[in-house]
Amino acid sequence: MAPKLKLTYFNMEGAAEKVRLALKLGGLEFEDDRIDFANWPAFKSTTPYGQVPLLTIDDKPPVTQSFAMLRYVGRLSGLFPEDLTLALQVDEICGLQDDFARAISPSMYVAMRPQVFGYPEDLPEAERKTLQAKMRASLMADGGDVPRFLGYFEAILAKNGTGYFCGSTATIADCTMLPAFRMLKSGRLDGIPTTVLDAYPNITAFVDRMHELPAIKAHYAK
Amino acid sequence: MAPKLKLTYFNMEGAAEKVRLALKLGGLEFEDDRIDFANWPAFKSTTPYGQVPLLTIDDKPPVTQSFAMLRYVGRLSGLFPEDLTLALQVDEICGLQDDFARAISPSMYVAMRPQVFGYPEDLPEAERKTLQAKMRASLMADGGDVPRFLGYFEAILAKNGTGYFCGSTATIADCTMLPAFRMLKSGRLDGIPTTVLDAYPNITAFVDRMHELPAIKAHYAK
Repeated sequence: MAPKLKLTYFNMEGAAEKVRLALKLGGLEFEDDRIDFANWPAFKSTTPYGQVPLLTIDDKPPVTQSFAMLRYVGRLSGLFPEDLTLALQVDEICGLQDDFARAISPSMYVAMRPQVFGYPEDLPEAERKTLQAKMRASLMADGGDVPRFLGYFEAILAKNGTGYFCGSTATIADCTMLPAFRMLKSGRLDGIPTTVLDAYPNITAFVDRMHELPAIKAHYAK
Repeated sequence: MAPKLKLTYFNMEGAAEKVRLALKLGGLEFEDDRIDFANWPAFKSTTPYGQVPLLTIDDKPPVTQSFAMLRYVGRLSGLFPEDLTLALQVDEICGLQDDFARAISPSMYVAMRPQVFGYPEDLPEAERKTLQAKMRASLMADGGDVPRFLGYFEAILAKNGTGYFCGSTATIADCTMLPAFRMLKSGRLDGIPTTVLDAYPNITAFVDRMHELPAIKAHYAK
């Protein structure tokens, strides 16, 4: 019998979106539990490790770690290949996306929690913005992490040649990459323009193709 | 037939050690290829994504991403459970260790590449050390990330009750945790004392138990 699944996260894409997409694309029923930021401080203390998303399976204690959930959902739904070599490729793409997110994250955290990087906790807003702008410019520069990683992803798609990141059908690697590209071109990251993907034809085609898959089209239509 | 494996990394533990431990513990033959830092700039340009470790399988193009390799080796050797629920637990522990490493990493990078965090590239050595000391003090403080994560790991071991992180035998989760604990108590991280694990009896017993496994004992004896 299929397990009863509940995915708990904020009402945003963030770290949970790849899991949501895999659940939808894999045709698994689940409760899409969205929590309010206002309730987060109280809710946080009830979580195992002070973080979301959480995946609750059959009313057991919730599980953490979005990539762990993604792999579990992928195994349940067939979106994670059984073949060792393909699974390795899928894991490699997921790791590379995580590296990309990690390269961008200081430019997000410096505005939210500057003390993590040795700045005063009460750093004025204007100075946070200046630091962020400087870091974003460095990310976007020639040889910076944004063109570097986008070049990698473009080349992987070009080499695979199927329109997907691994093999000939959608996998959890594609569920990982789509939200990363959606975020990057959303305009919500100051200093990264909505045209950022335009120079990458394979990435652009991938984003369009994924949005046309019926389950994903329905997911974003609501 | 077993694939021919070569693991390429610097002559240090770092990101590759969990893969080395899984290879040894899983009884898989492999070439333990150690590169010199002096050759790194030239070698880097030959790698797919400018990073090591690399895993070369049967003379195919090398694969990147240490956790992807770890899962592949775990599947080959039986150190990654087939059972969906246990595999999810293993993936969750690996993700939590990665979060812990990520919490510590700004305090390492700020000394090596301060520009990543918005500081001048030519920040004087003394100022780098001051920043690092401040960040390490914050990591080690009550409620800081070091006691917080060590508390999580201690509780997981206590709850599992087998001496291992998941199930009743060693898995790739244990291969991930051992190098993390070895690094933490090595004394090589200024501001983190070699006694850092002493208050955690389950972690201390885990580290000792892992070092007594014949394959791991032999690995560190050489």
